[in-house]
Amino acid sequence: MVNHVKISGMGKYLPERLVTSEELEKKMGLTAGWSYTHSGVKERHFVNNETCSFMGARALELALKDANMKYEDLDAIIGASGSFDHPIPYNSCLIQKEMDQENSGTPCWDIDSTCLSFVTAFDVVSYLIEAGKYKNVAIVTSEISSKSLNYNEKESATLLGDGAAAAIISKSTPEEGSMIIGSLMETYSRGAFYTSVKGGGNTIHPNDPDSNPDDFTFNMKGRAILEMAFDKLPTFLKKLFVQSQVEMKDLTLVIPHQASKLGIDMAKQTFGITDTQLVNNLANHGNCIAASIPMALHDALRDGRAKRGDKICLIGTSAGLSLGGIIFVY
Amino acid sequence: MVNHVKISGMGKYLPERLVTSEELEKKMGLTAGWSYTHSGVKERHFVNNETCSFMGARALELALKDANMKYEDLDAIIGASGSFDHPIPYNSCLIQKEMDQENSGTPCWDIDSTCLSFVTAFDVVSYLIEAGKYKNVAIVTSEISSKSLNYNEKESATLLGDGAAAAIISKSTPEEGSMIIGSLMETYSRGAFYTSVKGGGNTIHPNDPDSNPDDFTFNMKGRAILEMAFDKLPTFLKKLFVQSQVEMKDLTLVIPHQASKLGIDMAKQTFGITDTQLVNNLANHGNCIAASIPMALHDALRDGRAKRGDKICLIGTSAGLSLGGIIFVY
Repeated sequence: MVNHVKISGMGKYLPERLVTSEELEKKMGLTAGWSYTHSGVKERHFVNNETCSFMGARALELALKDANMKYEDLDAIIGASGSFDHPIPYNSCLIQKEMDQENSGTPCWDIDSTCLSFVTAFDVVSYLIEAGKYKNVAIVTSEISSKSLNYNEKESATLLGDGAAAAIISKSTPEEGSMIIGSLMETYSRGAFYTSVKGGGNTIHPNDPDSNPDDFTFNMKGRAILEMAFDKLPTFLKKLFVQSQVEMKDLTLVIPHQASKLGIDMAKQTFGITDTQLVNNLANHGNCIAASIPMALHDALRDGRAKRGDKICLIGTSAGLSLGGIIFVY
Repeated sequence: MVNHVKISGMGKYLPERLVTSEELEKKMGLTAGWSYTHSGVKERHFVNNETCSFMGARALELALKDANMKYEDLDAIIGASGSFDHPIPYNSCLIQKEMDQENSGTPCWDIDSTCLSFVTAFDVVSYLIEAGKYKNVAIVTSEISSKSLNYNEKESATLLGDGAAAAIISKSTPEEGSMIIGSLMETYSRGAFYTSVKGGGNTIHPNDPDSNPDDFTFNMKGRAILEMAFDKLPTFLKKLFVQSQVEMKDLTLVIPHQASKLGIDMAKQTFGITDTQLVNNLANHGNCIAASIPMALHDALRDGRAKRGDKICLIGTSAGLSLGGIIFVY
């Protein structure tokens, strides 16, 4: 299955407030350097008053500028995030509102596969464009993790960050040659609770008198995630490569979810990803849930690390536990 | 755009606990009969200990049985709900887990457009099936509103209910003739906060010391929703009919979101929907967010109100404010 779509433009938004690991280490009573050694993060951005929809709208404005398009060129806005401003309404309609387009009628809906939301949305949207339903679709991923950090869980509290990225996906012409050549997703719910924010929905409701503040924060079982991920990833990647008719050496860029330093290092070693191929923004962004992959893609493209016609692989794991990957000709 | 898909089977789950309007009226100090007069609801079901994923899995089991399929026949599970068990992980992977299929690898991801989630998912999934990516996909909608009721807001507290429905969507053969012949969505975020549960995400975090219990409950501005909906619906429905090349008289069933008694009555009158066409389960289910439409469809099919080849329209509004509709040959 080949879908003839291209990324017409991308945008990124980072909250103004920069939080160094030194600052976090002091706050959490950790020894100097603990964060970088264990999580691989030197600095990350945390929101002050920015919301998911605010950051998403700013990223989308930049993506439209990059694509040389106006809001009116968009046929749909897809929110693709693991976090959200409000349980109801959903993210993408609020992004439309933040764009001052509240009477536009542009259809908005969300896709959620936690950290893989952008990858899932890119795949799904490509079918809608290939079939001619839409011409230009915005995928907006905007994540705030800083409000849900558990400062007693140092691994995740020093790892996570906030940020947003947006991409405009458009129909490509045969001359352009941009296309998605492979995509795959697998979910193994044995690992469903390896990453969680358990409270905030119906099971542990905020008004539940038995709930406690820790219920509403991140919980990550890093070792269990890594074990399961690297048990499944070799076969998964092989399937994705066969489907896409590529080998590792054919890929100009490999952009893994910035799950953790150890995860990225293991992926590099296990699959023989070179430094030239690997895009790694963990040290100065942290793990920004689903925004990590599109932010890394944005920066790599801005830095000229891939040109039209090059093959790029986005790959990662998410809460679920899900594995997801997509290979496309940029 | 015509997508050749069919509903192979459906299932429904209602929580065991039946809550009469009499019970609610006593609890809320309302006069006898207030609920039915104002919200149109005589009785609804509320969960005891059931979760969204538990109800969804039971509905999916019944849908598989109805389709004469096994779990292994499914290529993907799409969660399509406005409410959720946990902020992370997402609904569909937990439904997989509840099906005792935690090592199956079946891809799971969620779509959210609040009350229109099932309609959006049906449309999106039809493109994935038409293109041959998947053969059989489960869409599972499972909603719990009862944990987030604000008993000081009598309009919504007497209106909402809990429940779940699942549908198996499959490729149809030319002989079968089942297909989606039209679909449309529009989002007008001017009405984004006409329906909301504002607290529970990043904007009003459960651990925010300034939050209060009301923040984590439903707020509905019924009159504003109706005004905006009926300002937009006539043009919207006309576009959907033109695209689908049908008129109202061609439709065997019209299944509106069970938003409110007044909304359904106004739709009936404005668009000339006959009693034979209209499916209305509000009185004994309440408004079950995105589960209302597929539960009503399930019951109408069970009751023999449509046969293969008949044309059915699903239509509604959701938080967003979004309008969505789909017309298909069953």
